[in-house]
Amino acid sequence: MGGCAFDVSDKPHEACGVVAVRSKKDAASYIYYALRALQHRGQEASGIAVYSGGLKVKKGLGLVSDVLNTEEISKLESKVGIGHTYYSIKVSKPENVQPQFLKTGVGDIAIGHNGIIVNSGILVSKLKNEGKHFILESEEEAIIMMLSEQIRNTNDIPKSIKAVCKELIGSYAFVLLIDDRVFAIRDPYGIRPLCLGKMKDGKGFVAASESVALDVLGADFVRDIMPGEAVELTEDGFKSINIGASINRAHCFFEWVYFARADSVLDGMSVYEARKRIGWRLAKEAPAVADVVVPIPDSGRAHAYGYALGSGIKMNEGLMKNRYIHRTFIMPSQDAREISVREKMNPVKAVVEGKRVVIVDDSIVRGTTMKRIVKMLKEDGHATEVHVRIGSPPLIAPCYLGIDMTDRDQFIADNRTVEDIRKEIDADSLAYISKEGLVEALNIEKENLCMGCVSGEYPVNIPGERRRFQQTLEGFT
Amino acid sequence: MGGCAFDVSDKPHEACGVVAVRSKKDAASYIYYALRALQHRGQEASGIAVYSGGLKVKKGLGLVSDVLNTEEISKLESKVGIGHTYYSIKVSKPENVQPQFLKTGVGDIAIGHNGIIVNSGILVSKLKNEGKHFILESEEEAIIMMLSEQIRNTNDIPKSIKAVCKELIGSYAFVLLIDDRVFAIRDPYGIRPLCLGKMKDGKGFVAASESVALDVLGADFVRDIMPGEAVELTEDGFKSINIGASINRAHCFFEWVYFARADSVLDGMSVYEARKRIGWRLAKEAPAVADVVVPIPDSGRAHAYGYALGSGIKMNEGLMKNRYIHRTFIMPSQDAREISVREKMNPVKAVVEGKRVVIVDDSIVRGTTMKRIVKMLKEDGHATEVHVRIGSPPLIAPCYLGIDMTDRDQFIADNRTVEDIRKEIDADSLAYISKEGLVEALNIEKENLCMGCVSGEYPVNIPGERRRFQQTLEGFT
Amino acid sequence: MGGCAFDVSDKPHEACGVVAVRSKKDAASYIYYALRALQHRGQEASGIAVYSGGLKVKKGLGLVSDVLNTEEISKLESKVGIGHTYYSIKVSKPENVQPQFLKTGVGDIAIGHNGIIVNSGILVSKLKNEGKHFILESEEEAIIMMLSEQIRNTNDIPKSIKAVCKELIGSYAFVLLIDDRVFAIRDPYGIRPLCLGKMKDGKGFVAASESVALDVLGADFVRDIMPGEAVELTEDGFKSINIGASINRAHCFFEWVYFARADSVLDGMSVYEARKRIGWRLAKEAPAVADVVVPIPDSGRAHAYGYALGSGIKMNEGLMKNRYIHRTFIMPSQDAREISVREKMNPVKAVVEGKRVVIVDDSIVRGTTMKRIVKMLKEDGHATEVHVRIGSPPLIAPCYLGIDMTDRDQFIADNRTVEDIRKEIDADSLAYISKEGLVEALNIEKENLCMGCVSGEYPVNIPGERRRFQQTLEGFT
Amino acid sequence: MGGCAFDVSDKPHEACGVVAVRSKKDAASYIYYALRALQHRGQEASGIAVYSGGLKVKKGLGLVSDVLNTEEISKLESKVGIGHTYYSIKVSKPENVQPQFLKTGVGDIAIGHNGIIVNSGILVSKLKNEGKHFILESEEEAIIMMLSEQIRNTNDIPKSIKAVCKELIGSYAFVLLIDDRVFAIRDPYGIRPLCLGKMKDGKGFVAASESVALDVLGADFVRDIMPGEAVELTEDGFKSINIGASINRAHCFFEWVYFARADSVLDGMSVYEARKRIGWRLAKEAPAVADVVVPIPDSGRAHAYGYALGSGIKMNEGLMKNRYIHRTFIMPSQDAREISVREKMNPVKAVVEGKRVVIVDDSIVRGTTMKRIVKMLKEDGHATEVHVRIGSPPLIAPCYLGIDMTDRDQFIADNRTVEDIRKEIDADSLAYISKEGLVEALNIEKENLCMGCVSGEYPVNIPGERRRFQQTLEGFT
Repeated sequence: MGGCAFDVSDKPHEACGVVAVRSKKDAASYIYYALRALQHRGQEASGIAVYSGGLKVKKGLGLVSDVLNTEEISKLESKVGIGHTYYSIKVSKPENVQPQFLKTGVGDIAIGHNGIIVNSGILVSKLKNEGKHFILESEEEAIIMMLSEQIRNTNDIPKSIKAVCKELIGSYAFVLLIDDRVFAIRDPYGIRPLCLGKMKDGKGFVAASESVALDVLGADFVRDIMPGEAVELTEDGFKSINIGASINRAHCFFEWVYFARADSVLDGMSVYEARKRIGWRLAKEAPAVADVVVPIPDSGRAHAYGYALGSGIKMNEGLMKNRYIHRTFIMPSQDAREISVREKMNPVKAVVEGKRVVIVDDSIVRGTTMKRIVKMLKEDGHATEVHVRIGSPPLIAPCYLGIDMTDRDQFIADNRTVEDIRKEIDADSLAYISKEGLVEALNIEKENLCMGCVSGEYPVNIPGERRRFQQTLEGFT
Repeated sequence: MGGCAFDVSDKPHEACGVVAVRSKKDAASYIYYALRALQHRGQEASGIAVYSGGLKVKKGLGLVSDVLNTEEISKLESKVGIGHTYYSIKVSKPENVQPQFLKTGVGDIAIGHNGIIVNSGILVSKLKNEGKHFILESEEEAIIMMLSEQIRNTNDIPKSIKAVCKELIGSYAFVLLIDDRVFAIRDPYGIRPLCLGKMKDGKGFVAASESVALDVLGADFVRDIMPGEAVELTEDGFKSINIGASINRAHCFFEWVYFARADSVLDGMSVYEARKRIGWRLAKEAPAVADVVVPIPDSGRAHAYGYALGSGIKMNEGLMKNRYIHRTFIMPSQDAREISVREKMNPVKAVVEGKRVVIVDDSIVRGTTMKRIVKMLKEDGHATEVHVRIGSPPLIAPCYLGIDMTDRDQFIADNRTVEDIRKEIDADSLAYISKEGLVEALNIEKENLCMGCVSGEYPVNIPGERRRFQQTLEGFT
Repeated sequence: MGGCAFDVSDKPHEACGVVAVRSKKDAASYIYYALRALQHRGQEASGIAVYSGGLKVKKGLGLVSDVLNTEEISKLESKVGIGHTYYSIKVSKPENVQPQFLKTGVGDIAIGHNGIIVNSGILVSKLKNEGKHFILESEEEAIIMMLSEQIRNTNDIPKSIKAVCKELIGSYAFVLLIDDRVFAIRDPYGIRPLCLGKMKDGKGFVAASESVALDVLGADFVRDIMPGEAVELTEDGFKSINIGASINRAHCFFEWVYFARADSVLDGMSVYEARKRIGWRLAKEAPAVADVVVPIPDSGRAHAYGYALGSGIKMNEGLMKNRYIHRTFIMPSQDAREISVREKMNPVKAVVEGKRVVIVDDSIVRGTTMKRIVKMLKEDGHATEVHVRIGSPPLIAPCYLGIDMTDRDQFIADNRTVEDIRKEIDADSLAYISKEGLVEALNIEKENLCMGCVSGEYPVNIPGERRRFQQTLEGFT
Repeated sequence: MGGCAFDVSDKPHEACGVVAVRSKKDAASYIYYALRALQHRGQEASGIAVYSGGLKVKKGLGLVSDVLNTEEISKLESKVGIGHTYYSIKVSKPENVQPQFLKTGVGDIAIGHNGIIVNSGILVSKLKNEGKHFILESEEEAIIMMLSEQIRNTNDIPKSIKAVCKELIGSYAFVLLIDDRVFAIRDPYGIRPLCLGKMKDGKGFVAASESVALDVLGADFVRDIMPGEAVELTEDGFKSINIGASINRAHCFFEWVYFARADSVLDGMSVYEARKRIGWRLAKEAPAVADVVVPIPDSGRAHAYGYALGSGIKMNEGLMKNRYIHRTFIMPSQDAREISVREKMNPVKAVVEGKRVVIVDDSIVRGTTMKRIVKMLKEDGHATEVHVRIGSPPLIAPCYLGIDMTDRDQFIADNRTVEDIRKEIDADSLAYISKEGLVEALNIEKENLCMGCVSGEYPVNIPGERRRFQQTLEGFT
């Protein structure tokens, strides 16, 4: 199944980034900058599609700056376009990279997608039976085909978008280019983030996965796109189309906890602030008698700062990260594994030696890295105690909606108590934030969050899994 | 002239990294790991030389992990070798990359060098007149030739090293491989750092530019190599050779302030601790009435923490760095320059909005980046005031001893008062730490530091520049 | 317009190569070998499509051996597949490379095409209006769509192939893979060549553009595919489908004169033999008083041999080709152009000095190279006279059916007499073979040849051009 | 040992190419063109050294046109320089590529070398004992060192060249650049070829391995450099230096038989003519009752033509070569070996079917390819008989002087009679030209040829091998 599917590694929390731009000129350049600001949401592949006389697509495997030739980009005369950054081990061929596009009788259609359509297999089969032909059999091809069929029948793009979205089950933040018209669309639950910005001096309008993409363009944040809303970026601003929202939202809590950049604001909540609040709450829920709070760089920094504020214990940088280590080299001798973790992270002895240390991170997946860090702090850093505090509840269930944590048995928390895990990672104490604490810290009602990976209950119908509660979609008439 | 010469950019403080290893086996692999830990001291080129039956050299332009094939490295049967990481725009050809080597009548000699030999031009000319021939006319070739000539005459390697070092004027931390013997050598002033480590379980011995290279190998720190000391790594440990130290040392203060990794300990002083103390002292020297201390990531983080401690103002991460931006893309329109700085750094509004902000960094070279950050904090982050605090005195003079800051007119502090600079960068206040404060924070006597770049006085004789004070070398008999 | 369109250079006669294989095993490897044998028909791009559990496609820009990874190829378990070599400046993106494919409700369909569909623009428009969507808007996509639609309606592949071919105007030799069924199809005029082979020891069956592809597999030549015939390669042999032949054939005479490999046999006539006969006939039509016959290597060698036989003048290698010159380097001085031609070809003085020389080549397009060769033979080789003999009639009209000679004004023979051309290239005499002579040499009736590029009359309806004579298609009922 | 050492494969006869130029301008461009004309003498590496303000060297692994950037080349302002093409599997690193160079007290010296210095190991050791240091321990470094030492002592370059050459045992054609002076030097036996040319219109002078390099520059052939002669190219022409010739020459006969380009003239004898004469003589020595003479393309073409002339049997191209096959792909099945040879060469059935065929080639090394060709002609081409004729005597001994045929047991002719070999390759008859016939065909006295590889007797002293006859060097005083 297509969309943005991800590999599960020890820190696998990756997602796609999307952007749509309408501007007076240089749309391609704006998209380029915005994609670089969203690079953390996908480093595997990058692409851009603009309308410049006709549809022009540039895409490939790799980082934005490796894939897109800036000379080409800056020469593309364009007022409208979309961009995408992608992460997936399933992307092995250049043609899989997004934006995907098709040239149809109703225009050239390109799409960029963050999320996963759960029923895409059924949709592809149905379309093939109706005589449609695919290259990738991807969700995105299916959506473009359904859309072009609708437009052919109705000659009304907004109506067509609405009709197609009614068929989709899953999470999605789409950016959509139909000839020289551009849309940004968010699923009825608002699972993946998507927001709107306005560039200064009438330069134009932008929609993007996160507000940092607006910041880099010097664009003012206008508002989040609502769950179940499609927005067309026009010459004068935004035109809103109601595609039918759920009564309850289902924002992915992991966006705040790990995915999004700390300097983004999602659905009204600053990511940095959210992490700080989580840390603060964690300090109250699970205090520790300790001398210093040490963040796991860089993922745990804001949580740690919050923990320090909440606990009154000073925070200090007791672990240094080597930013040059991308691949691990395994030496042909027994101490390789130990060197391997030391390469990426090193304790600052001046900070931790002889100290009782609290380390704070956003989450634990397999636990192997955390185990090595605890050991390293004690053996190399001479910390006397190491207490572990985690800014999310234990991960126990797969994500089917944009984060590939598909196998339950990869989670260290699968069928283990917190005490079991503490022993496994050899910490002096271990605590996760409670679900209630998390919800409170995010300041969003539990009913409006997707917490599938920590609860096993999902906002949409996933075969074989429990549904959160029965959703009624309003506006779907 | 050769050695490690560097390009001056807005943040040009780069230097080479060296490592020497003697181990029971797998020396090449240990060197590889150590070089990756020293990658911050040079990303332009990397190389390794080991004795494996004979001299084997692998080197090239690029990062350690790009240049060195780990399969080759792990197959190299070796007990002894050296490694080098390099930064310089002058390195344009693979043959310039270090280690450099020559095959001589007294053995195969390879050398890696961190520092600059001021009189290398004279030495090369002299050697050419004596019938020696060069490929690069580099400092390193000259040193190997002088060394082989001495060994031929005396048949005594330690005596030869001492004789050659007496001829050299400048800064140097050498690693030297003569067939299967390996040495680490530090100049009489100890300008560049160099330390010794002992691997656990009798695995072997290591010398390296910084202690982080020891940490990654799980090696215990033994001691710093003394100024004017050459150390041979032997099967049983270390053999010390006195090559003649200066009465006073001249440790480069910039190693603590910017160069070295925060988790290193140099000449007895933790880099992280030093930066924290500088920040603390700066808070006392130049307090600010403000709401939040914001570090410039990542260079100013420890200084900022110290400033927060010293001032009692809370530190908070108000600037986020985009780690994917390596090259800048300039769009063909007027707002490109502004986007360019926003790409690299973005304010966290939740932290700085409506606040009086103190930003702390290690140094200012040209000042252009600092100016843009101040502007961005005010315009995008809505900070009400921005106060700038700098962890080093104003840079006013070139470095001839390992950091390429060669043109005075590139310094914003050249012939400008602090008030001039404050206006230029549009800060509400600006303060640098005083020289006295810096010395006190480092806890090293002024007489034992090289502060050429902030004082214009140098520990060695530089044509056309003032000498710090007359040095007498002891042990040079 | 798509298909195999070609750049016009001084020797632009290039075409595509296609191959289809059904074997007991290792189909992919057989296709690989066959493609290398057909590499002369296209060096720009290469691709392979096999059925191995499902459709597997490997393709890219470059030579077969650069594009296709032999390790991958040899691991592809396959009994059936197709291959393609491509030449065109219009191929700029990997996705344009053939075989092209689509996954449809009636199966995965891949196609490789040699030839040009003249009405493809109309077909694409029509399909888009019917709700079909394209990525490339290519002939091949259109054909696959039409085919899948037919199969969906009729559930009869042979009938569907026939129905689709009735819609096509132009030249084609197709290889077609529909899931695990494989077909080779030739247009009603037999414009492009296509033949059938049987591998020894029951290993399998093959169809290919030229018999050399059979030779390399050690396959016995069975027969040419007939104009208007589609052949399915089955486990037991071949199943023939009549798709409707023209009463008259229209074999491209240029295949024998230049395109095809000299060791191929096309439609019953050995290419080498054809060239020799052309040369022999040319000697009778246009004798020369001369001392030596010199071939232009390698294109004129067989023609020259025939000329020598026909004239009784000895042939000798008086021009040597430098096989390492692929790109021309223009020096920044006046004699660059002369050096440039000398780089590629050099006279053997021992052969031509003081001699009256006849040079023989297959054709002249722009004439610039021929002019330089004449000059070189006289000035550098000291030939006393140079007589030029050409194995085809003067090229005066574009080819729309597989060779890109699209602009009349690029032909030196456009609106020029033979005497004009002789003066232009500065030869002592010049003669082309007559159309009658050519027809006789090929031993194929004039009515069964396409001689559009030398007559301006085409076998199919080309807008704005004369049609050869009114064709009636038989079997089209 | 260094120099031009070569891998032994089935057709391993490769050598280096050298060129030296002095011109009014654009020397680098002329060298570039000349090197491309000499590319057949070495495809592994290429390099150029010019004096342009100082010594500039560009070199690398690969073909001339891949290694040398023409934009750089055309911008190099230079009047003097040298170039080199290299073949050797021993060249694995860029630094080994020639020209090699050293910067010495008497100037920058660069050298390009075709040949092998037999006593280079001794020279290197001696120099190391004298305090010299090497990077490669190559012949070329040794020669430059000896030369700079001589020049330092005598301040007389010609005298120094003479003194150094007296120390060298082996074959050499050197090109030598000392600052802005350029020399071409040939060993006392003239083993490797070297000739002089004069460019038209006073453009300058050139020395090169073969006359084809002169041809491409439009330069007139002046004369061969004599054995034991060094020639300086000056602004006005050539200055000859006698370095001491042997009484007898020892031209390598293989240059005419295989190495050199057919359009070259070496030591007064046209290569094409020599091959034709060899073929003619072979027809007289070893006639065959046959219907057609077929050359092995391209190496046997001229020999075959001579055989046809001598025998009165018509020559015809019965074997076609696929010029796109560079690497062999071995399929995972039993018929791979057969396909492999068919890929490279294919019989033209129209020429050989039912015929008694004579195939002619220059030499047989291992015999495996010849065996497959015979089989292919019979099985695929349906030739009734295949008679093999070879244009050199059986290869039985190693070459130590520029062609790497080092292991006797790789020769099919080692300890085998001609009849044994005939059976092995399954030919109907087999004949090699006799030594006497070869000598007569070349029209050079046996005493003036090196025939080491067919006689086992060498012109210079090779440890463990017989010397041809005692040589006395004249002019060595």
